[in-house]
Amino acid sequence: MERTFRQPLVMVDTALFTIRDEHLCLILARRQEPPFEGVLALPGGFVHIEEDADTAMAARRVIRHKIGFDAPYLEQLFTFSGAARDPRGWSVSIAYYALIPSSLLDQSQVAEALPAAALPPLPFDHPQIVAHAVERLRSKATYSSLPAFLLPGTFTMNELHRIYEQTIGTRLDKASFRHKILEQGIIEPLSDQFRVGAHRPAQLYRLASKALTPFERKI
Amino acid sequence: MERTFRQPLVMVDTALFTIRDEHLCLILARRQEPPFEGVLALPGGFVHIEEDADTAMAARRVIRHKIGFDAPYLEQLFTFSGAARDPRGWSVSIAYYALIPSSLLDQSQVAEALPAAALPPLPFDHPQIVAHAVERLRSKATYSSLPAFLLPGTFTMNELHRIYEQTIGTRLDKASFRHKILEQGIIEPLSDQFRVGAHRPAQLYRLASKALTPFERKI
Repeated sequence: MERTFRQPLVMVDTALFTIRDEHLCLILARRQEPPFEGVLALPGGFVHIEEDADTAMAARRVIRHKIGFDAPYLEQLFTFSGAARDPRGWSVSIAYYALIPSSLLDQSQVAEALPAAALPPLPFDHPQIVAHAVERLRSKATYSSLPAFLLPGTFTMNELHRIYEQTIGTRLDKASFRHKILEQGIIEPLSDQFRVGAHRPAQLYRLASKALTPFERKI
Repeated sequence: MERTFRQPLVMVDTALFTIRDEHLCLILARRQEPPFEGVLALPGGFVHIEEDADTAMAARRVIRHKIGFDAPYLEQLFTFSGAARDPRGWSVSIAYYALIPSSLLDQSQVAEALPAAALPPLPFDHPQIVAHAVERLRSKATYSSLPAFLLPGTFTMNELHRIYEQTIGTRLDKASFRHKILEQGIIEPLSDQFRVGAHRPAQLYRLASKALTPFERKI
């Protein structure tokens, strides 16, 4: 028989992105318990083997409990581990990330959305988790429908273009962006629906059904 | 204070790829202990918090112990979890994958390399881990220097072309493969070194220094 070894602590941490005031932001929550009580941190918590079916469900429970809404889509980011990352002992954190429309965030009483580029000092190895998540998001955003999930159900081409620029953090040529997006077929125009504003009416679009999974490749 | 919860079992599993007889193979080892004693499985084992710095080091230790060589490069694949995947209880397995030159495998007394497309029934959720690893390998192989790490230090263009075809599992047009590889600058010719065979002498290449990390993107 195998010997029994002392097991690591097992937790989940979540990097939840949103766009606020045209900037890519991360949703943080103030820790209610030690260690680092009262400090802003990524929402996270221990896996509860009696109630969680798997670590993804643990992450959903943590978000519901600590932030107050159901996360729409979660993708596994990376698993962090070692003796040094948490003062409570040798631990494993399975990190997840998601894109949250800011309208959903408005339901939360406790969350704060702060610019990814100007975060306060974060506890544990959360700065490393954030760096990983930002890099993954930006590398995926450029070839997927991912940023569109930050928008409400219908949007104009200008709004879509802006949300891609904000997510990726660079300017994108408008004409070639439009051409590429339409070529990929991830959005479709709503027939006879336009947004009327100061300029001429703008065609409204929605995500095409083929784009309805935000993470094209599951792994 | 936070309550103390019963922690999951924490283990690592490894999907180690090699090429044998022109086929993409996985390295399996026969389990020495229950559960599934005597059955071929992915090399895996529990994390030992007293000796492993992190889960990647745990995976290296497991490979050394169960297969008998030092793995050259490991990349984290995905973390699998839940009550059902291991009969010993609610568990978390952090899975890693690597490419192993078959010359390295020859040092091992215990490992068997079997074609990924014709594996025996595997225990635990190992079939799911293998499916994940094969998909990741193939999606990365097409735009990286990854398959070249299955070759010895120097190789001809024909050998490189063949190892890409075997890894990806499809035919690749030879002329456009050659063009693309040279354009990316991931290999460089060895001046005045040729392999002499039945045909005209073939230029020898090696990986360029810019390609020396097999996994271009660390995440």
